Amino acid sequence: MQDDIEFATEAEDLLEEKIEHAYELIENKDFAKLKDLLEEMEPADIAIMLEEVPIDKVPLIFRVLPKELAADTFVEMDTDQQEVLIRAFSDEELEAVMSDVFVDDTVDIIEEMPANVVRRILRSISPERRAKINDIMNYPEDSAGSIMSTEYVDLTETATVSDAFGKIRETGLNKETVYTCYVVDRNRKLLGLVTVMTLLTSPETAIVSEIMDDNVIYTTTDSDKEDVSKLIEKYDLLAVPVVDREHRLVGIVTVDDAIDVIQEEAEEDFAKMNAITPLEKPYLKTSVFNIWKARIPWLMLMMVSATFTGMIISSFESALAAQVVLTAFIPMLMDTGGNSGSQASVTIIRGLSLGEIEFKDILKVIWKEARVSVLCGISLAAATFAKIMLVNNLLLHENVSWMVALVICITMCLTIIIAKFIGCTLPLLAKKIGFDPAVMASPFITTIVDAVSLLIYFSIARALLNI
Amino acid sequence: MQDDIEFATEAEDLLEEKIEHAYELIENKDFAKLKDLLEEMEPADIAIMLEEVPIDKVPLIFRVLPKELAADTFVEMDTDQQEVLIRAFSDEELEAVMSDVFVDDTVDIIEEMPANVVRRILRSISPERRAKINDIMNYPEDSAGSIMSTEYVDLTETATVSDAFGKIRETGLNKETVYTCYVVDRNRKLLGLVTVMTLLTSPETAIVSEIMDDNVIYTTTDSDKEDVSKLIEKYDLLAVPVVDREHRLVGIVTVDDAIDVIQEEAEEDFAKMNAITPLEKPYLKTSVFNIWKARIPWLMLMMVSATFTGMIISSFESALAAQVVLTAFIPMLMDTGGNSGSQASVTIIRGLSLGEIEFKDILKVIWKEARVSVLCGISLAAATFAKIMLVNNLLLHENVSWMVALVICITMCLTIIIAKFIGCTLPLLAKKIGFDPAVMASPFITTIVDAVSLLIYFSIARALLNI
Repeated sequence: MQDDIEFATEAEDLLEEKIEHAYELIENKDFAKLKDLLEEMEPADIAIMLEEVPIDKVPLIFRVLPKELAADTFVEMDTDQQEVLIRAFSDEELEAVMSDVFVDDTVDIIEEMPANVVRRILRSISPERRAKINDIMNYPEDSAGSIMSTEYVDLTETATVSDAFGKIRETGLNKETVYTCYVVDRNRKLLGLVTVMTLLTSPETAIVSEIMDDNVIYTTTDSDKEDVSKLIEKYDLLAVPVVDREHRLVGIVTVDDAIDVIQEEAEEDFAKMNAITPLEKPYLKTSVFNIWKARIPWLMLMMVSATFTGMIISSFESALAAQVVLTAFIPMLMDTGGNSGSQASVTIIRGLSLGEIEFKDILKVIWKEARVSVLCGISLAAATFAKIMLVNNLLLHENVSWMVALVICITMCLTIIIAKFIGCTLPLLAKKIGFDPAVMASPFITTIVDAVSLLIYFSIARALLNI
Repeated sequence: MQDDIEFATEAEDLLEEKIEHAYELIENKDFAKLKDLLEEMEPADIAIMLEEVPIDKVPLIFRVLPKELAADTFVEMDTDQQEVLIRAFSDEELEAVMSDVFVDDTVDIIEEMPANVVRRILRSISPERRAKINDIMNYPEDSAGSIMSTEYVDLTETATVSDAFGKIRETGLNKETVYTCYVVDRNRKLLGLVTVMTLLTSPETAIVSEIMDDNVIYTTTDSDKEDVSKLIEKYDLLAVPVVDREHRLVGIVTVDDAIDVIQEEAEEDFAKMNAITPLEKPYLKTSVFNIWKARIPWLMLMMVSATFTGMIISSFESALAAQVVLTAFIPMLMDTGGNSGSQASVTIIRGLSLGEIEFKDILKVIWKEARVSVLCGISLAAATFAKIMLVNNLLLHENVSWMVALVICITMCLTIIIAKFIGCTLPLLAKKIGFDPAVMASPFITTIVDAVSLLIYFSIARALLNI
């Protein structure tokens, strides 16, 4: 996290200027100049620019874009704007745009659109592409199959180097994935891959099966998309080929999709760990009602589970009445406990997510947390004792007795040890029984730790203070 | 987050088998077969395999690897093992390995090594490479310059297509970044880029400056590496060229490094939001003392700031003594407040990190959170009222009076509204004044919200219950 508020590169300043200029040209209806300007811009930037334009003007502006740029921009736009555009398009316009959209992007668009719009999109697409789209849509959500791209270069084993170059030129794709060609046999079974670098350094007449690399990292259609992204990250790949159960090549997952998956999964963890159901759209575009829906169930759960802490306090009512000073330290003990627990749980949850920690490490983790928690517990208890003596007694004249201070410090130390134990074991156990460890973070651990710390507090208070 | 504990792909099973097999061969000292096996494996996997091997055997195994594979594996290994290897290497061996390690990776290694090892590494490297390494090491931490790679293909404006292919072949790099060539003028100023696809579809004699794309997305050496990663993510790039203040091309940042930056930043946010100083190494490899050091300052801070909540409770001691039942609801009110606040703050902090929200959106954000918090507050207050009547009174016979229930519900509603207001504004203000918004998440907001909710609670209790 750096702290500068805006991008500082020259390129970004230039972009701001271009967008401002585009708005002027739109106001003045100077579409010829607008076309020149837009042709120089990146699709992602045009999409950002269009977000601020009144929605009824968007189709008008969109029509000045050349066909391929129009398709690329369309993919980058948000769902609402895509829908408006599709509804504004004539059948011919829709066909022109959709014919340049990649199959995996088309699937993404279709998944977000209402049924009548989907019908129009599918009508505008050629039957072969429609078949491919249906295939991808049939793969389970979150599988490699559901995010794969079907645009790649495949070669037969008997092809020569010059055949390969011919095929690459033929695709006409200016996508980096054309630089890896996948070699398949007659039954489309994946045999190996050959890179353009290898092709460039081999004689024109060489046979690809002789120069190919047959040691291919691949994945299967039903693999979890998160595992596929980890594969791409681990081996620094640009794309990973996807095969079906018969080892036939059916698509590739590319690095840009892998980045999106990694980001998405991290955001989901951020939300779940903080007791929020993950939102589907960016915050500013999500309705108040949907944000409420994402937050209220967890608040309700917390409220109900707090019944236990309430019951514990009620049952020690007489003890508290005898030593009212004990009440003043309840928030500190609860906060410290909750914080200690979440420090451990967040560390373990992320370790699990990143594949750094597995269930089999549970004893190692508990042993490590035990030592950390004893260190934290003792140092914090000592600091608390000093604080009570200096701040509460000397400065604020609260006259907290030595015995009460001792009760608080022992509770502090034990609470931290137990909180860290719960914090580190709960996510591991959740993973083991097939639950999402991230959900274990905030609400559950806080409630359990709250209850435990109060029990310890009052039990020790009763024992030491004779109340 | 999916819930299967282990990777499910065939490829992963195969990898497990290979690693097991390698261990057997090492035990039996069958180095010929080991060599054949390792040559089929990916560098990242060999590095994983080596982690479980006794450290004194690692140099022995390392020596069976062919030169290039040895270099790639070396880069993937962890710092401790790299250090052991460097110390075990003869000068010749070190030179052989280091000559195949990319400049940016060499910088990463040097940054982690003790001074005497660094001296040995630098001695083993050619003077030109040493100059490049020094350049990169002089860029500020977290800048694009510090993570850039200096291995790329550059062409002069007058080069022809066949010159370009010659230069690409000459690099001998089987890295995907060779498929984009950067065109520079006599002073090395960046003019444009040309992809291999364009080269393949152009006549051999064409001049690159005529076929190049002069609309290049680039960054500067002093840009924040996080911004560069966002650029790569936004435009789906494989690499972004890095220029100095005079617009001269000095390197490229590649997508695999961008993924690492994105991951790293997310992990830092996870840690900071949960009151942990980010760890530099994976959890299981970090010492107990270092974990303690990363956690204890935040716990101390929490403990000290809890003085305020303690003071508030102490000052309302008489009110609490008059109505001991009020104490039982303190944990619920505090937890709900803390949770509501962190729901808002996490959403805003991530929105800021992802660039979805900026400081100028502050009024939009406050207005949105205001409506969400009123909805949450009213629904939760109603649920709490029902819970008190049904659970506390009917089920547990605690006889909470109507008035006390009312006090609790009004406090609940107001606490949520204020907690969400604090939760959404604090990160935005932190960003504005140049603080890291992530640090605002847990400890600060919890403490403030705790204090505020207690103040509201006791004030309303005094007013309505006449105590």
